Amino acid sequence: MSLIPDLNWRYATKKYDTAKKVSQRQLDEILEAISLAPSGSGYQPYDVLVVTNPEVREKLRAAANNQSQVTEASHLLVFAAWDNITAEKLGKVFDNMALIRGKSDSLDERRKGAIAGFEAKSAEENFHFAAQQAFIGLGVGVSAAAALKVDATPMGGFDPKKFDEILGLKAKGLRSVVILPIGHRHADGDWLVNLKKVRRPKNEMFIEVA
Amino acid sequence: MSLIPDLNWRYATKKYDTAKKVSQRQLDEILEAISLAPSGSGYQPYDVLVVTNPEVREKLRAAANNQSQVTEASHLLVFAAWDNITAEKLGKVFDNMALIRGKSDSLDERRKGAIAGFEAKSAEENFHFAAQQAFIGLGVGVSAAAALKVDATPMGGFDPKKFDEILGLKAKGLRSVVILPIGHRHADGDWLVNLKKVRRPKNEMFIEVA
Repeated sequence: MSLIPDLNWRYATKKYDTAKKVSQRQLDEILEAISLAPSGSGYQPYDVLVVTNPEVREKLRAAANNQSQVTEASHLLVFAAWDNITAEKLGKVFDNMALIRGKSDSLDERRKGAIAGFEAKSAEENFHFAAQQAFIGLGVGVSAAAALKVDATPMGGFDPKKFDEILGLKAKGLRSVVILPIGHRHADGDWLVNLKKVRRPKNEMFIEVA
Repeated sequence: MSLIPDLNWRYATKKYDTAKKVSQRQLDEILEAISLAPSGSGYQPYDVLVVTNPEVREKLRAAANNQSQVTEASHLLVFAAWDNITAEKLGKVFDNMALIRGKSDSLDERRKGAIAGFEAKSAEENFHFAAQQAFIGLGVGVSAAAALKVDATPMGGFDPKKFDEILGLKAKGLRSVVILPIGHRHADGDWLVNLKKVRRPKNEMFIEVA
């Protein structure tokens, strides 16, 4: 199976059809894909907020340069990375591993090593690691959405501090890193939909070491 | 079309079959998917090295905790983010946009604004932005590989400084951020292939704001 036709179909949708909602089945599948995305050591150090509340989305739009997708797409996903990789958060991850694969001495050793490793680094370094994993999830989520012919717009143009405040993320130990409205394009009113896709020349982006 | 069966099929392959190579057609398609991955403002601020040279891969393996996938997978992809978003690098991106979509005053304005925006930030901030885009590419690349039934192992356990030195990345203004061996699993010798997939409970990872 090839993803290329779906990846060519997708684009950073600028105008959504407010009347066309993403079905629960499609939403569940996109979230399932994000859950199945790989992450460093399998820790999945980020949460994803699924925002449908209209008042909250109005506030978020104001903190995102008034970009219409924030309120007009069917759902708004907010990827929020752990602000630090703490013993408490990692502990839950290892408890879950033990639950699924069974307890073992080697798993206990890995847990201790992992906690010590992250504690030796700064919160900011750990946050960058966590954010990177969230971006893998974004890539897999966008791919899964495209395969379902669901539009999605990865967006970095928002004020993370304001988003964190509106969504109460600080208290959860989270920081918003990227947002993803999903829905269905309103092709008639979208200036981008018919423009040619621009990509760097392959011979510049890909370097063979043969 | 659903990506879920392919995402469930994939796993962080620990042992590759050295006799089974990824075909040129499959490789081209995985690189095409990475090229089609979304990126912030479409800048694609990273390159991908496709390493097949055996001597180079031996050196890289030594700088990656001797993990066997680095030499035994069919191909090794090294995602290398721009170490800064400079006027020179962005200039090429905008030249390419002008070539594909045509020159315009508004594009010139965007170019100036983008260069000024990144120049106002530190090289390290810009590098983090670039690295995050590379991780989106990784997520899309892994999805495309899984759809083709090509195995892939995203790996962060390597020494980026040594990788940069071995691959001469500093002179190119690049820093390695994540590596992706691709190939075909050697299921008989792989301790991970039959273990249950571990994922965080969905009601912890996904938060509804309804």
